[in-house]
Amino acid sequence: MRLRLDIAYDGTDFAGWAVQAGRRTVSGVIDEALSMVFRTRVRLRGAGRTDAGVHATGQVAHVDVPADVLPNAYPRARRTSEPEFLPLVRRLSRLLPADVRVRRIIRAPAGFDARFSALRRHYRYQLSTAPYGVEPHQARYVAAWPRQLDVEAMAAASHELIGLHDFAAFCRHRAGATTIRDLQRLDWSRDGDLITAHVSADAFCWSMARSVVGALLAVGEHRRDAAWCRDLLAATRRSSDFTAAPAHGLTLIGVDYPPDGELHARTAVTRDVRRRDELS
Amino acid sequence: MRLRLDIAYDGTDFAGWAVQAGRRTVSGVIDEALSMVFRTRVRLRGAGRTDAGVHATGQVAHVDVPADVLPNAYPRARRTSEPEFLPLVRRLSRLLPADVRVRRIIRAPAGFDARFSALRRHYRYQLSTAPYGVEPHQARYVAAWPRQLDVEAMAAASHELIGLHDFAAFCRHRAGATTIRDLQRLDWSRDGDLITAHVSADAFCWSMARSVVGALLAVGEHRRDAAWCRDLLAATRRSSDFTAAPAHGLTLIGVDYPPDGELHARTAVTRDVRRRDELS
Repeated sequence: MRLRLDIAYDGTDFAGWAVQAGRRTVSGVIDEALSMVFRTRVRLRGAGRTDAGVHATGQVAHVDVPADVLPNAYPRARRTSEPEFLPLVRRLSRLLPADVRVRRIIRAPAGFDARFSALRRHYRYQLSTAPYGVEPHQARYVAAWPRQLDVEAMAAASHELIGLHDFAAFCRHRAGATTIRDLQRLDWSRDGDLITAHVSADAFCWSMARSVVGALLAVGEHRRDAAWCRDLLAATRRSSDFTAAPAHGLTLIGVDYPPDGELHARTAVTRDVRRRDELS
Repeated sequence: MRLRLDIAYDGTDFAGWAVQAGRRTVSGVIDEALSMVFRTRVRLRGAGRTDAGVHATGQVAHVDVPADVLPNAYPRARRTSEPEFLPLVRRLSRLLPADVRVRRIIRAPAGFDARFSALRRHYRYQLSTAPYGVEPHQARYVAAWPRQLDVEAMAAASHELIGLHDFAAFCRHRAGATTIRDLQRLDWSRDGDLITAHVSADAFCWSMARSVVGALLAVGEHRRDAAWCRDLLAATRRSSDFTAAPAHGLTLIGVDYPPDGELHARTAVTRDVRRRDELS
């Protein structure tokens, strides 16, 4: 039986989402807890393979488990009509460290694959221009940028990047992975010293979200302009003209899926097109 | 010359606000940085002496410094017309650890005393009833309370405590300190699993905010009722009928002062009435 898990984590002390031998990773830590509960080795598959230091409030994953050992499901009426595996959520909350929480577990609808069914991923990037740095309660999630930023220039340059493009200039190389992505949202807002970017795409190539933010910071400091941003889309390899923004300002806040009835079709198409791709 | 400092901190790794020999305290850490800048021993005085583990986003303090060694002040026009000591804010941001930030420094108006001029202190208490515990990015600031709470019963019982009362039942003993306080606000709100209390009073006796929340949690779990809450106000010593809520859910979010022209009068009266009192 396939389960869908909704997951949140503080990426500070993790070497990213994806399992790596000998490193503390988010999926590794959850795999371990799930394997303990189910008394058999299981392997989580996530929608977004976040890098070291990147956080999530809305990560989605699936896992296939033997149906005969599954604890009872019953509805948590206050919140949703969908039956949640609440005893399993509670058990995991005691097994997992405080920096990773499995917020919800439901039976995955037919055809669901956390990675291949996803329509789009939503990230948030936050930074603070305050002269004193970052408020302590935000210090793990907001990058310090204690200088002037022209947020309007950044917003204007962001328009140049929206749409289906080859984002090679913004991607670290990964063998066999396409860098053509559909950037659907990239907007900026300011609340006092706190600057927030929302970045959404069908999928992100490696380091893309942080690189896009990094390029726009160069625009915000008037070191580059919108035309330079647009020209980056013509590049066929990673640009060294700018640096990726610090990992700890980035948070995966959500993943969109099609309605249940369209899952089979979506999953089949994506799996086919991107079988050897590194969606993240 | 007297300076007013606006301060934020994550209380997790501090033994509270007040200086204690051999312990890492918030005012101790700031005193040390200020003494380094001014090359002379200075001593900060705060409006709220928060306990170990309690946080602040809106702590206010003052310090007297030799005017001749003060860096230049100049206005930070974008935000305020009041001249801020920005170079000093920047210098402190590099000297202080990331879990304490001095957000603003201005020349204190005549008659200002961070402790004795204060009209009221505002605290926020947050807890989560989610079955999975607390979201990782809130785990240091929100107490886990993974069971049902009747927030309406808590709000109703809170009404019983509003006003000028002897809060002895809610206070840890401190020699010579009055426990008569004017509780001006105590309200509750719920956003999904996150429950937030706002607590405001002219001043708080030792452990009062956490004890008030702890008593109301007993009401929220239907172990006690509003009448019991009211009867606590007749007690002349600390009650053992309930426990204080965990420190890390509590944050000092602000301190109110009268208009500049009324500072002298306010400070004189408070200092006189409460000279030997332990306001916190």
